[in-house]
Amino acid sequence: MGEDTEIPLPDKEQNFNDWYNEIILRAELVDLRYGVKGFIVYRPNLATVLKQTYRLFEDALDEHGHSICNFPVVIPLEFFQKEAEHIKGFSGEVFWITKAGDSELDKPLLLRPTSETAMYPLYAYWIRSYRDLPLKLYQSNTVYRYETKATKPLIRGREFYWIEAHDVHRTFEDAVNQVKEDMEITIDVLHNQLGIPFLLMERPSWDRFAGAEHSFAFDVLFPDKEVLQIATTHLLGETFSRAFDIMFEDEDGTKKYGQQTCFGIGISRIAATIISMHGDNYGLIIPFHVAPIQIIIVPIPKKGKSELILEKCEEVYQKLKDKGYRVKLDNSENRPGAKFYHWELLGVPIRLEIGPKDIENGVITTFRRDKRERFQIKESQLIKTIEQLRGEILNELRSRREKDLEENIREAKNKEEFLEIAKNKGGFIKIEFCDGNKCAEVIKEETGGYEVRGKLFGKEEKTMGNCIICGEKAKSIVYVAKAY
Amino acid sequence: MGEDTEIPLPDKEQNFNDWYNEIILRAELVDLRYGVKGFIVYRPNLATVLKQTYRLFEDALDEHGHSICNFPVVIPLEFFQKEAEHIKGFSGEVFWITKAGDSELDKPLLLRPTSETAMYPLYAYWIRSYRDLPLKLYQSNTVYRYETKATKPLIRGREFYWIEAHDVHRTFEDAVNQVKEDMEITIDVLHNQLGIPFLLMERPSWDRFAGAEHSFAFDVLFPDKEVLQIATTHLLGETFSRAFDIMFEDEDGTKKYGQQTCFGIGISRIAATIISMHGDNYGLIIPFHVAPIQIIIVPIPKKGKSELILEKCEEVYQKLKDKGYRVKLDNSENRPGAKFYHWELLGVPIRLEIGPKDIENGVITTFRRDKRERFQIKESQLIKTIEQLRGEILNELRSRREKDLEENIREAKNKEEFLEIAKNKGGFIKIEFCDGNKCAEVIKEETGGYEVRGKLFGKEEKTMGNCIICGEKAKSIVYVAKAY
Repeated sequence: MGEDTEIPLPDKEQNFNDWYNEIILRAELVDLRYGVKGFIVYRPNLATVLKQTYRLFEDALDEHGHSICNFPVVIPLEFFQKEAEHIKGFSGEVFWITKAGDSELDKPLLLRPTSETAMYPLYAYWIRSYRDLPLKLYQSNTVYRYETKATKPLIRGREFYWIEAHDVHRTFEDAVNQVKEDMEITIDVLHNQLGIPFLLMERPSWDRFAGAEHSFAFDVLFPDKEVLQIATTHLLGETFSRAFDIMFEDEDGTKKYGQQTCFGIGISRIAATIISMHGDNYGLIIPFHVAPIQIIIVPIPKKGKSELILEKCEEVYQKLKDKGYRVKLDNSENRPGAKFYHWELLGVPIRLEIGPKDIENGVITTFRRDKRERFQIKESQLIKTIEQLRGEILNELRSRREKDLEENIREAKNKEEFLEIAKNKGGFIKIEFCDGNKCAEVIKEETGGYEVRGKLFGKEEKTMGNCIICGEKAKSIVYVAKAY
Repeated sequence: MGEDTEIPLPDKEQNFNDWYNEIILRAELVDLRYGVKGFIVYRPNLATVLKQTYRLFEDALDEHGHSICNFPVVIPLEFFQKEAEHIKGFSGEVFWITKAGDSELDKPLLLRPTSETAMYPLYAYWIRSYRDLPLKLYQSNTVYRYETKATKPLIRGREFYWIEAHDVHRTFEDAVNQVKEDMEITIDVLHNQLGIPFLLMERPSWDRFAGAEHSFAFDVLFPDKEVLQIATTHLLGETFSRAFDIMFEDEDGTKKYGQQTCFGIGISRIAATIISMHGDNYGLIIPFHVAPIQIIIVPIPKKGKSELILEKCEEVYQKLKDKGYRVKLDNSENRPGAKFYHWELLGVPIRLEIGPKDIENGVITTFRRDKRERFQIKESQLIKTIEQLRGEILNELRSRREKDLEENIREAKNKEEFLEIAKNKGGFIKIEFCDGNKCAEVIKEETGGYEVRGKLFGKEEKTMGNCIICGEKAKSIVYVAKAY
């Protein structure tokens, strides 16, 4: 902890971009001086959030019958070339290794942009019989894409942290259920542990993952009213199992292709979402489940009482640590005000302040970072109160963001209304749509980049009228937004 | 679970190499058919052990004031070239990225062989004042070396999984203490959690890490009497801080170079050690702390009682799961004998067998994988017994391997004795030594590859005589062994 500049942050609502660019540096989340475009350094304050987020998803995947595995970061050319659509989708953006030591490689290797073509040749070896199914594996890794669009830290880069799960099922129905399970896992972590609301969309046909039959995606709303895709699950069907020869002998002796799904959880992007959604003008607010420090204890000094105070702080520290909380006692020499400022900037969800009066009265002064409220709790009720607070804080964070999301979904009855909202409001715009890529292109052009994000999944929304762009009979209700 | 071939494994003591090559495939730990030399696939049975081992070390590092961070996998050429000794040590074995998408890169990037040159340029930005010290960061990542020696799965490859910690201290003494702390962390996990004994060596001057002033290493003994380095900690002093300009202003206003250390924990190699050390002719024995499945429950069927039995199995399963154990109930259709065979092969440390008689008598038939002993425990004492068993199993595994190690450290009083032991016995050979590289070369030549591994750290062993090779006055007692 150095001396923080106590210059206010840019206003988050008014000027989100400046706020974001400032907070990621001031809270020491990343360093952008690594010297290779699109590659950034994750500093401990962020890397710890990443680690915790990985563990939440890994535990959830394990709980649902997935197993972890590790495939190499390099993919041999002959693996990569097996599925035509997939190559078309990715070959323009891969990094090539052509040399090792002093010698040129006979065949170049590529850094994985995603691992379908690394994993599926092995799946073909492993799967022989229906008894080998389902096969449900995931990797916690990094992938590499030579992005030519402008990069933005944690949101769009050339190296990103994610989890990718790749499953093979016996029947198409099982694969469909797998996609639903992937959704449940994502919803559970985002909603119940991170307080992140989202729209779950089925992507239009022209925006599917290269090789997928159906693509579903979790879109979140950023404070600047643009949206970000943070997780996707794809029904691959037999596209890859045919290309990679993933076949099994079914119970009746017939040979069949495996029914596949894949599932990506953007851990870097979820970190960006945590920062952007929950933060405020005082800095970060990190959800309790993934906070590097969940509870910070600040002694309030008083002459002649310092020993007594420190003793009590250490007692409280030990009590919380024994309960498994990530707790820190800040007994540095800074004044309490500087400590408050610092730990608020870093988003520690709960602060305990312990001074002579607290000790005298058997209480602890408690500060909730989300509401910035200070109140007293009984020391004897400490653990119980913390248990309760963590739930309340999560609910508060989530309901704030749910309100945002709700307020930023607007219906446009015609093109004029649509363009007006796109120009002045942003967020999601709900329209009647013909499902045509041409109309999607018109939208993009006339709005400077709005995209058809797809239909809402899991809720039937019936169309009554015509496409607001071309006037033909509408086929679905879609959500349109400007995306990162 | 398929149908295991119940053909016995090769005998581990007689033919370790065949045993190893067979077990890693039969227990589905790795797949060697990835198609790129030196790159292997970690299957779930092994990847889960890796994940748990990472978590043990990460938790231990966190506990000792380290923080996690993430640096890119690519290193720009200009970073890599900053420290001359280091380049000399690594440049022959790096992978080069020269192309991205369709374009040649202006400057090639290399895949990190280790992260000193990635991290230290940023350390120079972050460290300004003595208040910024110590800086103690680690990464859980993979590194890439274009090995030209023969590769061996998990032991020597071109991609390996490790943790690397890089610390900067204010004084040389603090750095020395850091090295000791690194040793304590390693000892704690290896000894108390994995049951792995080792020799902690200070490496001779010609075998130090490129750029280090002192290198310390944990050597373990394999069943074939060869040794493997699984962790190292290096006192770097100012070598890198001078090359990378890592300076701080001390309390008295003077500018000083940071005192550095680095610490590598070979997670892939520790996995190889777990497999090789603890396994037996029935398969793996995975230490309780890192076992993917810690307790397997096998129902013993009896006609007309299947519902009763399954109910009890599920009750026991839930009880163990609630306590946080990684437990599995195997209610597949295989016969109990096949299940026993399978889960023994996979090294599950504790098996519970529940049949009608057990239920009648309020007991559970329990099987310890390490001793292959079957006994009955009271169902009411289940949790308490498991708690106790996990400690006993660890002690048993460790003491077996300690005995091995002890029996395979032999003193050679002269060159003749030395060559005889090297030829016929293997293991560590303790000799009086002049500390000269020339004599080390003689040893290597005359024994077909034995290496001076260094002096035992932390235990002063005084020399009384002369170097057994050249006859000059000995400077130290060293340990010589054939190493992987």
